[in-house]
Amino acid sequence: MAMASGTVELATFERRLGRVQADLRAAGVSAMLVGPSSDFFYLTGHDAHASERLTLLVVPADEKPFAVVPRFEAVLLGERADLLDVHAWQETDDPIAIVAGMLGMGPGSFAVSQQLWSTFLIGVQAAIPGRDWRDATPLLRPLRMVKDDAEVALLREAGRRTDVAWEAFIREPISGQTEREALARLTRLTTDQGLKVNWGICASGPNAASPHHHTGERVIGEGDAVVFDWGGTLGGYNSDVTRTIHVGEPGGEFRRVYDVVRRANQATLDAVRPGASCASLDATARDLITAEGYGDAFLHRVGHGLGLDVHEEPYLVAGNDLPLEAGMVFSDEPGIYLDGRFGVRIEDAVVCTATGGERLNEATRDLVVLD
Amino acid sequence: MAMASGTVELATFERRLGRVQADLRAAGVSAMLVGPSSDFFYLTGHDAHASERLTLLVVPADEKPFAVVPRFEAVLLGERADLLDVHAWQETDDPIAIVAGMLGMGPGSFAVSQQLWSTFLIGVQAAIPGRDWRDATPLLRPLRMVKDDAEVALLREAGRRTDVAWEAFIREPISGQTEREALARLTRLTTDQGLKVNWGICASGPNAASPHHHTGERVIGEGDAVVFDWGGTLGGYNSDVTRTIHVGEPGGEFRRVYDVVRRANQATLDAVRPGASCASLDATARDLITAEGYGDAFLHRVGHGLGLDVHEEPYLVAGNDLPLEAGMVFSDEPGIYLDGRFGVRIEDAVVCTATGGERLNEATRDLVVLD
Repeated sequence: MAMASGTVELATFERRLGRVQADLRAAGVSAMLVGPSSDFFYLTGHDAHASERLTLLVVPADEKPFAVVPRFEAVLLGERADLLDVHAWQETDDPIAIVAGMLGMGPGSFAVSQQLWSTFLIGVQAAIPGRDWRDATPLLRPLRMVKDDAEVALLREAGRRTDVAWEAFIREPISGQTEREALARLTRLTTDQGLKVNWGICASGPNAASPHHHTGERVIGEGDAVVFDWGGTLGGYNSDVTRTIHVGEPGGEFRRVYDVVRRANQATLDAVRPGASCASLDATARDLITAEGYGDAFLHRVGHGLGLDVHEEPYLVAGNDLPLEAGMVFSDEPGIYLDGRFGVRIEDAVVCTATGGERLNEATRDLVVLD
Repeated sequence: MAMASGTVELATFERRLGRVQADLRAAGVSAMLVGPSSDFFYLTGHDAHASERLTLLVVPADEKPFAVVPRFEAVLLGERADLLDVHAWQETDDPIAIVAGMLGMGPGSFAVSQQLWSTFLIGVQAAIPGRDWRDATPLLRPLRMVKDDAEVALLREAGRRTDVAWEAFIREPISGQTEREALARLTRLTTDQGLKVNWGICASGPNAASPHHHTGERVIGEGDAVVFDWGGTLGGYNSDVTRTIHVGEPGGEFRRVYDVVRRANQATLDAVRPGASCASLDATARDLITAEGYGDAFLHRVGHGLGLDVHEEPYLVAGNDLPLEAGMVFSDEPGIYLDGRFGVRIEDAVVCTATGGERLNEATRDLVVLD
């Protein structure tokens, strides 16, 4: 992640940390342990770096939050003295022992952030055995999945810039390029917009039938459907867009599948409103695609939350009865994948407002045919 | 990570998995659980993607390894049927329950890879309570830290290409560019060499006194020392180089500090031989720098192992008595950091051979003065 701090006010982090502490007390949890991740950034504005050197934010239910960090990185947290205390460890210290000592010797229940490396959790579990360890995700989910205005503004601007990159991308032919070359050009156009790009997929021809294809050296040519799924970050917040183009005039089945996916994307958007369940959005897309005879080829959920992580709560998947709320931002990305032949996916980011869904991406969804 | 599979033979992965199984039996451990990470790639050649969807490699001591993966990503493991069985889970399944069921209901001891997300470990711990959970790192360390010829060849070529990028970079002035712009140009030159670049540091002026400075919008100008620390991957294997340049003619203290750091880098290289302890290499650099009066300004260990991770075993740090072996690859990166003023770091990758240390980087270590 490349997250610019300073785009969000320090008071915002104070409020978030205070909310976590109130939630910890309500849940009877002693403290939350947060490793370098989007959770760390969300709570402090600091883009902590995950490595073998322990960096850990500890948010006790009743005391001032503190961070245990490598000594020579402590300066990076210097502006946050009002938010948290910093305990720096030297290269020859045992940081696990420092954390264990600070967590105290009494009984306790600890919530652990999703992405903390297991090596650190196992270390702390061994140092203070007999405690209760739980996933912090249920505690953080209500905070993170409802975006405030500043977060929506960053997501909107990240989406807009990604659209600009796409509109430039489809002005030139791609036949003869490898998947890797085509994706590199799209990446370049996206970084030219001031976004930081960390991932992307270009899947061509039969590879497009694999939703998470690993972009490779296949040469794109006449008759290929090509799926591009990519995004970038602005102030830490992600865009995530998928468009499917065709090289040369497509045949009837591709046109039909493209139309089905496009209608499923629109129907999902139209179903967005506060109170609608996450599962109902998935069902909307799935019912439409199933009615058209492609239900078995829609291999994944219709969407996922989008924010500091590319995938986060809420997940738009069967079985998830969570009701949508205004401020939630998520992808709307139905797809149809015909093994050995081709695939089509169309994805936008959508924000749930008080009156319905609003797209954060407006790059054309018309079928684009390139040379 | 961007790891190209196919650069290593399938037989290599069979051998590595077999070695892990033998080590598990010897240690009395039931199975190793490996999340998406360099460990997963090292053992299977598959560049698994870390996300909220569980992907887990399980290596039982006595049975065929298996992977639990999202259904629509199972195809990505298709070529590895001889290595491992694949258990695909649907979007509405509970993958933790699948893993727990396959780990069995008897007692057991499990080794968990360093970077597995805590959310998954906590889930499995809750599903099969009462087991013993340990860090897999001590089991994997002996394998991963001694590179075979194919690994050294990739590290060497990654290093060579990074050197080429640097030599091109220093042909042009950098005064007036922001840190971000300068790093972007160096990144571009490195990706032009066919490396995938995922990180980098440009730290200028007083920022150069912060070893892990977050590259920002400071404008580089006359009188600045500028530290560049960057690298890229080739077939999954990392380069990691640091060079420090000066903008405009430097003063006497910068020259003196630069000379001390350069001699410490050389002395560390000269101390490399099989049997020398990791701690002794750190001491070699530290003693030299301390004798010159800058001991307190050498804020970090002298080096770290380099391979599929940018930081991995062995760590060249005080207290680590591990003896070097031929095939170990690590950084040699002494630095001196003068708070509020400037910093100097010079870093090469080094392979330990039967007869001593051999650098994988030969980009000039002469003091470079740029406009």
